[in-house]
Amino acid sequence: MAAPLAPVEVLERSRRGEPVDAASVEAFVRSWLGGDSSDALMSAWCMAACLRGMEPEHAEAMARALVGGGERLELGALGPVGEIGATGAVGDAAPLVAAPLAAALGVMVATTAERGLGHTGGMIDKLEAIPGFDADLSLAAFVRQARDTGIAVTAPGDRLAPGVRRLAALRDATGTISAPGLVAASMAAGLVAGGAPAIALQVGCGSGALLATRDEAEEAARRVAAVVAPWGRTLRWTVVDADGPLGRAVGNALEVAEAAEVLRGAGHAGVRELATRLAGDLAEAAGVAPVGEGRARARAALGDGTALATAERWVTAQGGDPAVWTDPGALPAAPLRIDVEAPRDGHVHRVDGRAVGEVARWLGAGRLHPMQSIDPVAGLEVLVAAGDTVDEGQPLAVVHARDDGAGARARDMAEAAFHIGETAADARPLVLGEGGGDA
Amino acid sequence: MAAPLAPVEVLERSRRGEPVDAASVEAFVRSWLGGDSSDALMSAWCMAACLRGMEPEHAEAMARALVGGGERLELGALGPVGEIGATGAVGDAAPLVAAPLAAALGVMVATTAERGLGHTGGMIDKLEAIPGFDADLSLAAFVRQARDTGIAVTAPGDRLAPGVRRLAALRDATGTISAPGLVAASMAAGLVAGGAPAIALQVGCGSGALLATRDEAEEAARRVAAVVAPWGRTLRWTVVDADGPLGRAVGNALEVAEAAEVLRGAGHAGVRELATRLAGDLAEAAGVAPVGEGRARARAALGDGTALATAERWVTAQGGDPAVWTDPGALPAAPLRIDVEAPRDGHVHRVDGRAVGEVARWLGAGRLHPMQSIDPVAGLEVLVAAGDTVDEGQPLAVVHARDDGAGARARDMAEAAFHIGETAADARPLVLGEGGGDA
Repeated sequence: MAAPLAPVEVLERSRRGEPVDAASVEAFVRSWLGGDSSDALMSAWCMAACLRGMEPEHAEAMARALVGGGERLELGALGPVGEIGATGAVGDAAPLVAAPLAAALGVMVATTAERGLGHTGGMIDKLEAIPGFDADLSLAAFVRQARDTGIAVTAPGDRLAPGVRRLAALRDATGTISAPGLVAASMAAGLVAGGAPAIALQVGCGSGALLATRDEAEEAARRVAAVVAPWGRTLRWTVVDADGPLGRAVGNALEVAEAAEVLRGAGHAGVRELATRLAGDLAEAAGVAPVGEGRARARAALGDGTALATAERWVTAQGGDPAVWTDPGALPAAPLRIDVEAPRDGHVHRVDGRAVGEVARWLGAGRLHPMQSIDPVAGLEVLVAAGDTVDEGQPLAVVHARDDGAGARARDMAEAAFHIGETAADARPLVLGEGGGDA
Repeated sequence: MAAPLAPVEVLERSRRGEPVDAASVEAFVRSWLGGDSSDALMSAWCMAACLRGMEPEHAEAMARALVGGGERLELGALGPVGEIGATGAVGDAAPLVAAPLAAALGVMVATTAERGLGHTGGMIDKLEAIPGFDADLSLAAFVRQARDTGIAVTAPGDRLAPGVRRLAALRDATGTISAPGLVAASMAAGLVAGGAPAIALQVGCGSGALLATRDEAEEAARRVAAVVAPWGRTLRWTVVDADGPLGRAVGNALEVAEAAEVLRGAGHAGVRELATRLAGDLAEAAGVAPVGEGRARARAALGDGTALATAERWVTAQGGDPAVWTDPGALPAAPLRIDVEAPRDGHVHRVDGRAVGEVARWLGAGRLHPMQSIDPVAGLEVLVAAGDTVDEGQPLAVVHARDDGAGARARDMAEAAFHIGETAADARPLVLGEGGGDA
């Protein structure tokens, strides 16, 4: 076999549209992970991936290199271990529900999750809005808790596939977060390193997501499935329309409150639908529910209180206040709420998820630079969706802010997210595709 | 006016194909120059420019920012001061001839030049093959010599538009050297900072050049003209076919020897043609020759010895051995010469300039990484061009190498640069376009 190309040759050939073998791409990523080549080379690679796409075998090579850069768990021996994965979206409380819900169905949930990327929220940022919650478990504590409590969720820190976080930070800083190949490589590397043999994955597309189109999202999902299969993972995926916010709540404490409503058997219909899909699919992939029955069992567990009880056990095990699931007052709240009002009568044609996410990020729910701290109370409640009819002056959203100035500016920014027209508009389907891949 | 976009927003919007105002691009480049944003952001920008092109006003904004990052000379008060500029090409000895030739016509030549980029040679690397030649003049010495001797050529060091060199090194390291906007911005910034009111510019296109097509090269030339005009510069440009090597010699000492032959009134016809164009155009732009007569005067100065005498004065003034222009033995030479032979009878359809340049670079005539030192004797003499008929075993090129191993490998690599077919092939025209812009 020929020696791999030098990193700069990989870029030059990619720029000219000439073929590059997968081994050279793997060496390119390893060279970056090892510090032999710089962030400048990797960000140029990411920009090329965004603008020109990435060969499937290149995404797989990237994932292999990213997995190789750290520790890798293998949890299959513990029992029916499963992991919930979701690429970024705005207002996505479903994984917060799906994790304890799947555990209530008998899956041993061991999920490593990320902080937010770009304008999208991250599961870890949301969990850290729960007073006392420790989202930085040691690997030993993570595995022990998954085994003893049946559910554990942690940030993987610098141990599991650390290149995935480094790459996320670099993509975030260089405006290169959106490419199916990059999303797939990063997601797959994290899932492989996390060690769970069963995986349920939700991939969003549209303005609020990292990927623009349904085709890109399906491509990313299939690539993740292809990468994880040789490692013995069974994956089920769902592609969702994340053009608008997926739920009513956008912001960390607000999304925990929204998850709590769903765990209590009520709450937002879309969040409930996505959570039962993730949990039901995971139960089937892990073999604790017969194929075709997972989602029905998940709906039942939301109705009979077992999901809620599991969520309380989980949060308690990680040092958090379990009252957040039953008492909205147990969560931190913003001192100020300001309505975003409809400027005229009409029909909601679109709620621009990215615009909503950017307002939440600007308020402090996300990061504008990597070292920024998160404000757990900041965010918006979005009260309407595409297809709704609104009257002038009717609240479209409620801004949750620290002070008048930020609140007023956020209200003005948020107005542009709501596209209101004179003609009637259709509601949009939430689920756009699904599939799976066995090991 | 709205505040400029943050650097990451410039990249995000560029990635999505959304408009970015020129002030934000200027701020983006200034932020990088000032160390507030990283090479990772700039390399992502450069990759996007390579793959998607750059708006004309963005190239102009980049040039303004690059000029603003250092000192800027204004030499118009000294007299008819002119500068020779050339974007990279393989085997381009013409600027080495054109500089003293223009000085012989009465232009006060004050040229700042660069070291090589990618597979292309740099004028400074070539001059440094001359024993004793000092290509790192202080700005004061540079201006004094241009005034007193009538000609000075120096690397601009870190004083004039230092961002141009930083950007060149970054583009070289990240495989992003080829984009008309980047080439134009860098070239224009260097020319503006250099301070000469008259400019003759040669822009190559094709495999051996930084730009692929005639359209890209004309676009780059026009953009340079547009950027320098508001600074009071008069520019004449020529676009040349640099798909193959421009001359016979590829390598630093070899190209000085080739320039010497032309200065003595003989030598390679193509190099002579390009040098008389550059010098004649510069004489006209600087107002020391009537329009339409510059090139004829240049041809005369090559024939009557005045160009040669000027070249001797020039090299002497910069500490070099003036014998290089008359005695081939005054230049360093490689111990080994190996023929690259034609594998069969046929017609030369193409000599791949980039492939030839890469062999020369691999032998040590250029750099594979920024800190690498140059071997002045390494390179090739290319003996045939597109349109020639060759017999099996006839030498196509001569490799100049330090040892047998390197020479044999270079010979094998070089063979692939010669595309030999059975049907007759046409010679290619050298000059593809020309134009100008007045201040």
